[in-house]
Amino acid sequence: MNSVIAVDLGGTKLSAAVVDETGRVIERARHPVKAADFRASIQQIADLIHGLMSQPQTSVGLIVPGIYFPSTGNAWAPNLWGHEQVPLRRELERAISLPVTIDSDRAGYVMGERWLGAARGLNDIVFLSVGTGIGAGIISGGHLIRGTGDIAGAVGWFALNPQRHVLYREVGCWEAEAAGPGLARRLNARSAEEVVAAAREGDTRAKQAIEETAAYLGMGLANIVSILNPEMIVLGGGVMQSGDLFLASIKRVMAEWAQPVAAQQVRIEMTRLGEDAGLLGAARLALGDSALE
Amino acid sequence: MNSVIAVDLGGTKLSAAVVDETGRVIERARHPVKAADFRASIQQIADLIHGLMSQPQTSVGLIVPGIYFPSTGNAWAPNLWGHEQVPLRRELERAISLPVTIDSDRAGYVMGERWLGAARGLNDIVFLSVGTGIGAGIISGGHLIRGTGDIAGAVGWFALNPQRHVLYREVGCWEAEAAGPGLARRLNARSAEEVVAAAREGDTRAKQAIEETAAYLGMGLANIVSILNPEMIVLGGGVMQSGDLFLASIKRVMAEWAQPVAAQQVRIEMTRLGEDAGLLGAARLALGDSALE
Repeated sequence: MNSVIAVDLGGTKLSAAVVDETGRVIERARHPVKAADFRASIQQIADLIHGLMSQPQTSVGLIVPGIYFPSTGNAWAPNLWGHEQVPLRRELERAISLPVTIDSDRAGYVMGERWLGAARGLNDIVFLSVGTGIGAGIISGGHLIRGTGDIAGAVGWFALNPQRHVLYREVGCWEAEAAGPGLARRLNARSAEEVVAAAREGDTRAKQAIEETAAYLGMGLANIVSILNPEMIVLGGGVMQSGDLFLASIKRVMAEWAQPVAAQQVRIEMTRLGEDAGLLGAARLALGDSALE
Repeated sequence: MNSVIAVDLGGTKLSAAVVDETGRVIERARHPVKAADFRASIQQIADLIHGLMSQPQTSVGLIVPGIYFPSTGNAWAPNLWGHEQVPLRRELERAISLPVTIDSDRAGYVMGERWLGAARGLNDIVFLSVGTGIGAGIISGGHLIRGTGDIAGAVGWFALNPQRHVLYREVGCWEAEAAGPGLARRLNARSAEEVVAAAREGDTRAKQAIEETAAYLGMGLANIVSILNPEMIVLGGGVMQSGDLFLASIKRVMAEWAQPVAAQQVRIEMTRLGEDAGLLGAARLALGDSALE
């Protein structure tokens, strides 16, 4: 059976796997990402791929934490390689002598969930990642939505409150109000995890902070529902690992704001693949997927 | 040269034209829409089409003010035919014995502007109609965005202000704040036209009402820009006939809120086709268009 090598390059972790056509993970490896130098990154990815090539693989799929530009093969991933674009496809193909299909992590997540996760086989879906940031991978009418500059899905910049806060300028209104750092800020906590832990112990202020965050999440979800009329929104990312604390409020607030028929038609689900969504999405890139056409 | 019959069925006006493959309007007709009865509407449309069939036409394109469901051929146009779906394609094809391609008015506008208007030949565009309501026709990656229930583009329901106003429940937050009736309400005026006229005469309160409306328009546009990364947004609809009063503020506010790179990439333009956008979009439906695939 045909198998491919899938690589999920994150901000801190580099995961790779040999995946067959059915989505079965045959072998996997995971390392911390090496220091922020493009040449070192290429070498680390190439070494990892070579280590997994125990059988002849035909192709590699890779997702990156940032923006990928298919027309040039360049990537922009400021957390890894600074604010300049890097010639990712050219350098990686040079290093490994295999064809590489690359895309953004958001594209990988939504393709993974559509292949083997919560949104299996659906044509109108959004993967919403809520972690240190907020971003969306979108498939509409069976096609991956890229936008004219390959940066579609930057929903962390949704405008949701006309009373502008100074924090909106750096990361966008929705992300400032509802991503992990925003949740922490509501309680002057060091991290979102701290707020979540306090809420689970019954702390009233922590529960209130989660409600306020969930209200913003519901408003943003409503906007996605009204403009795209998706069949499903899959929630993932670090904050959504505690999604059970948020989900009922998110759904209620979404239904208050969204176009009513579209609100009835959408299902809001938690990711079924967790951290493997990206890896399986990367495998899907290598195998080829109709959403990319 | 091949020519088709294009029909733009509005809430109050029924327009039709013979249009050739280059978009030239060979002949046109226009009537008030007859009373709100489906059977009477079919008869009126059929009569109009028969009146234009001076030469053999091969097909008809029709746009309707509401939602069209391609899988069933049904339409939902509450302003015309009440809240039940009607079997539009079946009844019209029975009445005129020609193949009919039908779609929503929003789809027609964006296809018309893409064919012969401001967005000629672009693959990532949004037509935003701001009149008595707010709605969007979307082409992304060259494909018309429909959503799972054919109601994508209901952006009048965008959530833009966490302080919910009672009016949001009926028409959505963005529409309540920024469509024609919302503009009129800011000045306790009878109509948006009255506010526009007062602003043109220098009335300070009217100018303030337009600024407040433009600020909400800018926020909503920003959300479209961030999620879809379009190359162009084309503004049309009744309120945008006075778009010169709004445009500078809309652009400024959009750029404050949207993802910064996407904000730089998008162009905001006024419709070039005006009321003919829908008619030419309907012609495009009849001629066939790759965006529909």
